[in-house]
Amino acid sequence: MTLDPLVIFTPSGKRARVPSGTRVLDAARRMGVDLDSVCGGRGICSKCQVAPQFGQHSKHGVTVAADALSEWNAVEARYHEKRGLKAGRRLGCQAEIRGDVVLDVPPESQVHRQVVRKDAAQRDIRMDPATRLYFVEVPEPDMHEPAGDLQRLNRALLDQWQVGPVEATLPLLRKLQPALRRGGFRVTVAIHHAHRGPARLIDIWPGLYESGLFGFAIDLGSTTIAAHLCDLDTGEVRASSGIMNPQIRFGEDLMSRVSYAMMNPGGDAEMTAAVRDAMDTLARDTARDAGIAPEACVETVVVCNPVMHHLLLGIDPVELGQAPFALATSEAVECAASELGLTSLNPAARAYLLPCIAGHVGADAAAVALSEAPGDRDELTLVVDVGTNAEILLGDRNGVLACSSPTGPAFEGAQISSGQRAAPGAIDAVRIDPETRAPRFRVIGSDLWSDDPAFDAEITGICGSGIIEAVAEMRMAGIVDASGLIGSAAQVGTDRIEAEGRTHAYVLHRDGDRVISVTQGDIRAIQLAKSALYAGARLLMDERGVDHVDRVVLAGAFGAHISPRHAMVLGMIPDVALDHVTSAGNAAGTGARIALLNRSARAEIEAAVTRIHKVETAIEPRFQEHFVAASALPHATDPFSQLRAIAPLPDVSFNTGGDGGRPRRRKRG
Amino acid sequence: MTLDPLVIFTPSGKRARVPSGTRVLDAARRMGVDLDSVCGGRGICSKCQVAPQFGQHSKHGVTVAADALSEWNAVEARYHEKRGLKAGRRLGCQAEIRGDVVLDVPPESQVHRQVVRKDAAQRDIRMDPATRLYFVEVPEPDMHEPAGDLQRLNRALLDQWQVGPVEATLPLLRKLQPALRRGGFRVTVAIHHAHRGPARLIDIWPGLYESGLFGFAIDLGSTTIAAHLCDLDTGEVRASSGIMNPQIRFGEDLMSRVSYAMMNPGGDAEMTAAVRDAMDTLARDTARDAGIAPEACVETVVVCNPVMHHLLLGIDPVELGQAPFALATSEAVECAASELGLTSLNPAARAYLLPCIAGHVGADAAAVALSEAPGDRDELTLVVDVGTNAEILLGDRNGVLACSSPTGPAFEGAQISSGQRAAPGAIDAVRIDPETRAPRFRVIGSDLWSDDPAFDAEITGICGSGIIEAVAEMRMAGIVDASGLIGSAAQVGTDRIEAEGRTHAYVLHRDGDRVISVTQGDIRAIQLAKSALYAGARLLMDERGVDHVDRVVLAGAFGAHISPRHAMVLGMIPDVALDHVTSAGNAAGTGARIALLNRSARAEIEAAVTRIHKVETAIEPRFQEHFVAASALPHATDPFSQLRAIAPLPDVSFNTGGDGGRPRRRKRG
Repeated sequence: MTLDPLVIFTPSGKRARVPSGTRVLDAARRMGVDLDSVCGGRGICSKCQVAPQFGQHSKHGVTVAADALSEWNAVEARYHEKRGLKAGRRLGCQAEIRGDVVLDVPPESQVHRQVVRKDAAQRDIRMDPATRLYFVEVPEPDMHEPAGDLQRLNRALLDQWQVGPVEATLPLLRKLQPALRRGGFRVTVAIHHAHRGPARLIDIWPGLYESGLFGFAIDLGSTTIAAHLCDLDTGEVRASSGIMNPQIRFGEDLMSRVSYAMMNPGGDAEMTAAVRDAMDTLARDTARDAGIAPEACVETVVVCNPVMHHLLLGIDPVELGQAPFALATSEAVECAASELGLTSLNPAARAYLLPCIAGHVGADAAAVALSEAPGDRDELTLVVDVGTNAEILLGDRNGVLACSSPTGPAFEGAQISSGQRAAPGAIDAVRIDPETRAPRFRVIGSDLWSDDPAFDAEITGICGSGIIEAVAEMRMAGIVDASGLIGSAAQVGTDRIEAEGRTHAYVLHRDGDRVISVTQGDIRAIQLAKSALYAGARLLMDERGVDHVDRVVLAGAFGAHISPRHAMVLGMIPDVALDHVTSAGNAAGTGARIALLNRSARAEIEAAVTRIHKVETAIEPRFQEHFVAASALPHATDPFSQLRAIAPLPDVSFNTGGDGGRPRRRKRG
Repeated sequence: MTLDPLVIFTPSGKRARVPSGTRVLDAARRMGVDLDSVCGGRGICSKCQVAPQFGQHSKHGVTVAADALSEWNAVEARYHEKRGLKAGRRLGCQAEIRGDVVLDVPPESQVHRQVVRKDAAQRDIRMDPATRLYFVEVPEPDMHEPAGDLQRLNRALLDQWQVGPVEATLPLLRKLQPALRRGGFRVTVAIHHAHRGPARLIDIWPGLYESGLFGFAIDLGSTTIAAHLCDLDTGEVRASSGIMNPQIRFGEDLMSRVSYAMMNPGGDAEMTAAVRDAMDTLARDTARDAGIAPEACVETVVVCNPVMHHLLLGIDPVELGQAPFALATSEAVECAASELGLTSLNPAARAYLLPCIAGHVGADAAAVALSEAPGDRDELTLVVDVGTNAEILLGDRNGVLACSSPTGPAFEGAQISSGQRAAPGAIDAVRIDPETRAPRFRVIGSDLWSDDPAFDAEITGICGSGIIEAVAEMRMAGIVDASGLIGSAAQVGTDRIEAEGRTHAYVLHRDGDRVISVTQGDIRAIQLAKSALYAGARLLMDERGVDHVDRVVLAGAFGAHISPRHAMVLGMIPDVALDHVTSAGNAAGTGARIALLNRSARAEIEAAVTRIHKVETAIEPRFQEHFVAASALPHATDPFSQLRAIAPLPDVSFNTGGDGGRPRRRKRG
């Protein structure tokens, strides 16, 4: 008796003997191998391509003969002629297994392929989108068995794909009959499989639909809205774009928007309309610029803080402006995108908002938790998402704590005399020579430092990371004392300092009348912001009962641009070895993208959020204590021991009294 | 040891011993006694009233002492003072059981009370509405446990009522926080429990909401739309009203509307808008006239034929105009009423459309099946719902068959020379003296016959039941022969006959120039209609393999007005003992009302419909044969043996040939 052929799939390594003549796709399905197919094995979608590996495979203990698969057949030949099949590839639904064979499933043929994230430290995203395409052959109607078209579609989906039954909205019921008849009762359907709730019909196309499905991951911030248009098949980000949050005209920070809602009847509805309209415009423009039809955009995931969350959902945020900061709903929200005013997507597109952690700790923090997964780490990790509010997570495998801290918009360049948002022309990096106290800087849009002879960029202002570096460098150069006071020109010994009333300002750049300087007010704004951030982190450390953390992850729209060293000089974050400070970029946006591409991640974060221990900064007296104690530069609890080894800090203090302005400089002993 | 008190509830007869001091409501719940409560036992809703039966009860074997229940307490006293409590009543949530007691639960305190239908032959409706009210105390928000308001509401519903969790639409999320706070975290919620799918929050009111919930049972016919506004607590019909279906301007019968959709791009959308607007107006006006707020109207059930079903749902009915008559969806549809353009109800109101049986046998036939339940009967019953289309069901416990027959609008008074719909002034009953061949008649709005000296009603036309009786009486009086031909005045021997071209007409009424007569064309229209109806019934009998039925039920908007005797003379229905012909009134509307008031009836009819054997008249050659054979008066297969005993039929035949017009009258012999 000869054995059945041995088939080995790579990269999974799954192996089994199958009867000779078994189609590759059938073998893969029986063996649980992740081999894609949209057309269900009809030789038209080409998703099930495999690459047979001929010759000897000592690793697998088999030798694959040239006739291990059936001959290239007419369907493959026609497909190749019409669309081209890569050399060495076979259609899994056509090739039959005749002998021992090793079959490689290329990434693009895998349903649950991995999307590799750029930072090696981060987990890859496993593709498992909620909305998928199915090509299906529906039995024609029969007068003697008068089931409706929807019922026959559902029966076919169950028979051919083991999915459904699906629910259809009335507009889709309207499309169903024409699509079935135009496609000769062969149609492609997009089905949304919620991780809870029913499977929903999203769209239907006659015949095989091949233009792909897309979704938006939207990071809805208080100041900016960022949208990433992702391919739901490959995970690829096809386009990213941003827009200012038009709610800024109702108030720069969240509490001023809540106040606006309280003071103006209908004010919340105005803000809801403004943000929905902006998101819709952003989605429409992004898809248009990427050349993707609105109908192909079938999902959106939104992450945002609780106030934006309520305003987007059309809920008056007034309760979030006062203790006990009650959310109307804390769980994830799954609804039609059209209910959020997103009319530029597929009419049946779905929207998903991640759960909120607490009244001050929103879906954006949940997204950071999803992206950075502190609860999966061995090291005690502090994750700080810096924006107008800072979301702070502290945790490891033993548990995760979370809070939010009202840093205000200073870190985003707002409330800073020469501040602007991160855009071309903004100073985003600053160095000050500790001897001459002369500055040099870089601006967004230019790779050169300002002291480079070839530097000729236009300079328009200073953004969040720029102001952080400027203040830290000023402190390190002895221009600012530990209390945050800028010394006079005479005290510091540089003509870069100008008097402004009773205080001073340090001039970074002067071009005719245009002066970009760091004023005493700017220092105070940064001190308030960094104190709030630091106090939040300390509060979580207290709650956890630790006085140090193993690792700090800086996240947020501008987290990628903050220099960890400067953040530590400033006392923004607790003291930790510099090489244990990493940037996670826009972790909230990444979390949104993960939730968009992987529906089990939604269930995962919903469960994780219930386990996160929430700490409310607003009612915690220790927060105030930490806040007050954290205002100094360097911090009173002296977290800078390591920093000093890198850049010795001159220990200066200035006062504005009448002693002639001489700096009282003491060398450290 | 003394025994615990014995408590006996009537009318259920449930009995158990409960610890002394148990509240009546708690005892009822533990014992599974159907005792209502909206406020959950807080002494404010008064739904849990019981009537203790003091004294000796030999039937139950107990004697109830005056102190078997605790004293009337302060809550009851306050309730009585504010609202009045009927003599002999106690609040079940206040009274405690102290000794053996017999407690009667009056009908209004039962959750699943029976709504008695007027006709004793019909089943009562057991109240089990899908939407119910719950008074609930929600824990106040707590910063240390930051669950959202919706989550705390859901937890309270589960704790206090064992229902939920509920899903809330965004507009309801918006209402949630203000309602909770205005009500001091005590609110009443309306929850819709679909028999499949999630529980949904329909509305929320601060404190105890006491204005009741209502729903519409809508019978959407091709010609008329009838709405019944029902109290979802008592089942009472609070108002009924009707309106013409405005789609009539697109075509009188269904096929002409389908043609309109086929010939006019966007024609289906026009018809959809027209019917939705009419239904919305009807609902708004009906509720307003009954003094019921739109917000209190939380449900609607619609029954209609398949073409109206598709047009209401916004689906192009073109497939229903041609074989194989494929429905877009055949299963029941559950959706937001607003999706059907019903904007005059509660914004979150739900709509339910009964399932369709087949492409020609709609949700109206399903509603008739629900109301008349032929499948529950021992006698083989033919149910005929006469409208523009006739829905025909034949069945008993061994199975049910269904078909639809295109009778056209003649039975509704359309396409009849003096026809009009059933409204004041319409002739609805006719008698012709067999000797003098003089007519007398009744009109709607008057109880007198036209030969009564006091008769002075205005006469405007003849409605469906009137034309049926007129034709039958003409046949019995020998004015019309078996082929349907009206004899000349000379042939018949009455001056009531006038020549109209080559044919004749029989004058029922003349008032100056105004003549109400039955023309040869009218006879032909009725012949076509009755032949279609009879042929459909015969087809089902063939399919069942029988040549007689035990019982005939006449249903339909005018089913109540048809005289069974005349229907049989006309050959509308198969021959059956006259006392076995009953009228079910508007059985489709009753079915809609049952589905509105009892959600398990929805599951029941959905299951029943799948078991109904559908017969498609349009493709069945025997239907044509029966149709042709059925055109004669009396019927060629002679179903009138019984009738003849009541009213001997003169066996006449007329021809229009040249033999001088003498009647060839043969006495039966």
